[in-house]
Amino acid sequence: MKVFIAGIDGYLGWALAQSLLQRGHEVAGADNMARRSWVEEVGSWSAVPIAPIQERIRMAGKIYGHEPLFSSIDLCDFLELRKVLHFFKPDAVVHLGQCPSAPYSMIDQSHAVFVQNSNLVSTLNLIYAIREACPEAHFVKLGTMGEYGTPGIDIPEGEFEITFRGRSAVLPFPRQANSWYHLSKVHDSHNLAFAARIWGLAITDLMQGVVYGASVRGLELTGPQLATRLDFDSVFGTVVHRFCAQAVIGKPLSIYGTGGQRRGFIALTDSVRCMTLSLENPPQPGEYRVFNQISQVCSILDIAKTVREQAIKKGIEVNFDTIKNPRTEAEEHYYQPDAHKLRALGFIPLVHLCQEVDCLLDVMAASSDRIRCKQSVLAPKIPWK
Amino acid sequence: MKVFIAGIDGYLGWALAQSLLQRGHEVAGADNMARRSWVEEVGSWSAVPIAPIQERIRMAGKIYGHEPLFSSIDLCDFLELRKVLHFFKPDAVVHLGQCPSAPYSMIDQSHAVFVQNSNLVSTLNLIYAIREACPEAHFVKLGTMGEYGTPGIDIPEGEFEITFRGRSAVLPFPRQANSWYHLSKVHDSHNLAFAARIWGLAITDLMQGVVYGASVRGLELTGPQLATRLDFDSVFGTVVHRFCAQAVIGKPLSIYGTGGQRRGFIALTDSVRCMTLSLENPPQPGEYRVFNQISQVCSILDIAKTVREQAIKKGIEVNFDTIKNPRTEAEEHYYQPDAHKLRALGFIPLVHLCQEVDCLLDVMAASSDRIRCKQSVLAPKIPWK
Repeated sequence: MKVFIAGIDGYLGWALAQSLLQRGHEVAGADNMARRSWVEEVGSWSAVPIAPIQERIRMAGKIYGHEPLFSSIDLCDFLELRKVLHFFKPDAVVHLGQCPSAPYSMIDQSHAVFVQNSNLVSTLNLIYAIREACPEAHFVKLGTMGEYGTPGIDIPEGEFEITFRGRSAVLPFPRQANSWYHLSKVHDSHNLAFAARIWGLAITDLMQGVVYGASVRGLELTGPQLATRLDFDSVFGTVVHRFCAQAVIGKPLSIYGTGGQRRGFIALTDSVRCMTLSLENPPQPGEYRVFNQISQVCSILDIAKTVREQAIKKGIEVNFDTIKNPRTEAEEHYYQPDAHKLRALGFIPLVHLCQEVDCLLDVMAASSDRIRCKQSVLAPKIPWK
Repeated sequence: MKVFIAGIDGYLGWALAQSLLQRGHEVAGADNMARRSWVEEVGSWSAVPIAPIQERIRMAGKIYGHEPLFSSIDLCDFLELRKVLHFFKPDAVVHLGQCPSAPYSMIDQSHAVFVQNSNLVSTLNLIYAIREACPEAHFVKLGTMGEYGTPGIDIPEGEFEITFRGRSAVLPFPRQANSWYHLSKVHDSHNLAFAARIWGLAITDLMQGVVYGASVRGLELTGPQLATRLDFDSVFGTVVHRFCAQAVIGKPLSIYGTGGQRRGFIALTDSVRCMTLSLENPPQPGEYRVFNQISQVCSILDIAKTVREQAIKKGIEVNFDTIKNPRTEAEEHYYQPDAHKLRALGFIPLVHLCQEVDCLLDVMAASSDRIRCKQSVLAPKIPWK
């Protein structure tokens, strides 16, 4: 299968590219290196050094026997994007090329507009380019579980059947996202359902939970060429990475509010596996399907406790620091998302949180100098209000 | 009350401005004349001639005793917009400054991106400018009934209480819009609910039905300075205007598909009244309220029959022409929207469809030369597929 990855230089993109290459798929990708500059803008860097994309691509060619085609276009440049898809003629396009940070989108007006505009336009451009260059290609889009918010009832996968005043209908599940970033993904979901309906595109929209981890089982992500980036700062790092980074430099884990916020989580290994399963089992033309891509649900406090437990085994002492929640969100709430559809395709979570935290602590400890010199970005500085 | 109208040169904006001036409110407004250029781009013009905005503003000052402040800024220019709101310090901001056409948004990739991007950014900029310049101002936003699509169950006003797997919650009603334009309004609605939640803004989001009419009861909208624009083309004219235009130039009314599509409709007089009621009865800080702004529900075929009936009374013979539907939409469907909340504020529809069609036919007949010379734009040329 020929797979085009928008955002191939990113955290998920680089891991997925290697996994697909290893499975014998043909891979091409695009990236404008924006993620590197955003992380730099907020004063941080990846915990593990990463090489320039050209070096990464060359090394991937050496290791996997097939060098991915790479283009440095901006996804907002429609004409160039269409040219690339016309040339490569992919069977599938995976969209991982968006700004993925809630706090980054909340910095100020210009960041809010930038994140919503560039995320939305990238998706519109990709579907228009697919429609014109490769209308039968399967479009796999990374959404987020954050689109649903915390509705207080079970969260189905994308849509649900409801009865209201005696009539029933299958409708999209209501979205209530809690940042301009998460809202940009909500906007995408609405746009994609429409595109499938009018043009007959085959679309998979992955509502992914919080992803964490530095490794992908079965791949040797070692060295600055093969490693995928590993952010730990409070803007681009996920909570698991941030806690592990705090642990290895002897800082208390900063818990926002009560820590009772429950979320879906998934390890990088399992995320890559889910994306691969989606790609290898495409939907019908005109089908817009939504998968909740999580392997377990736990609270922020559960995460902190897991990090502490694993750290203690390595002789690292860990304290908690409860800080004022910079976000506007419920801290104690019902949370029960479905996650059946990927399992029906064969997904079995391979990695438990404590295993990957164990591995992350080792990786972070080896990078503790890099983390220590950027430790000021571990504290949240972007309030929602 | 000091009211700032974004889009004061438009169809609704110019009518609302005069109504508010007549009621003794202080009015300021902004417009970049985009609506004029979009209509020109698709090869049409207003059925009634309209004067340059400077002349309109001067005449309004003469007639109503108070000249509105006017700024020609683009709403996408945040710094200028904030400056204007800082200077005027409005009690309320009404957002009528968006591209309002479904077919225009469906022309191609660049129009899709333009409509979604400029509509979304204008709203984000307005709420950020309000937050910084006048955080207590009431934000009144024009949405559309088209946000809901045709869900097959009753349509409540914005949100509803549902029970799912034994648990209940009050959630936003799911949106399923049918054009990039309608989707841009869906995106706005999600953004606005969030802005009310995090910043405590007071927001009214008006899900307006298809609006029609050339007159506002109690106002003399005569001459190119006071008249509001009256579009009849297949891109910017509503179906009622298009049918009236076809009738007065002796063309058959072009009905898309079966004509069984049911929609909410509202006359311009009643739309202005609803917006005024919303302004004069603001919500609480932090409240995001949604009103369905319609006065009656009927099918496209009902509209065609009404236009024919009224035309016959004037000795105009009218035929129907059923054409292939350029849009992707259900043509026979359940449609039962609530419209209680504005009535609870005192709204009673003043104008029935047949009355306003009677008036529109006279206005259009007096402009039949202008319509005839642009008659090619009456036929739809923008397919959804």
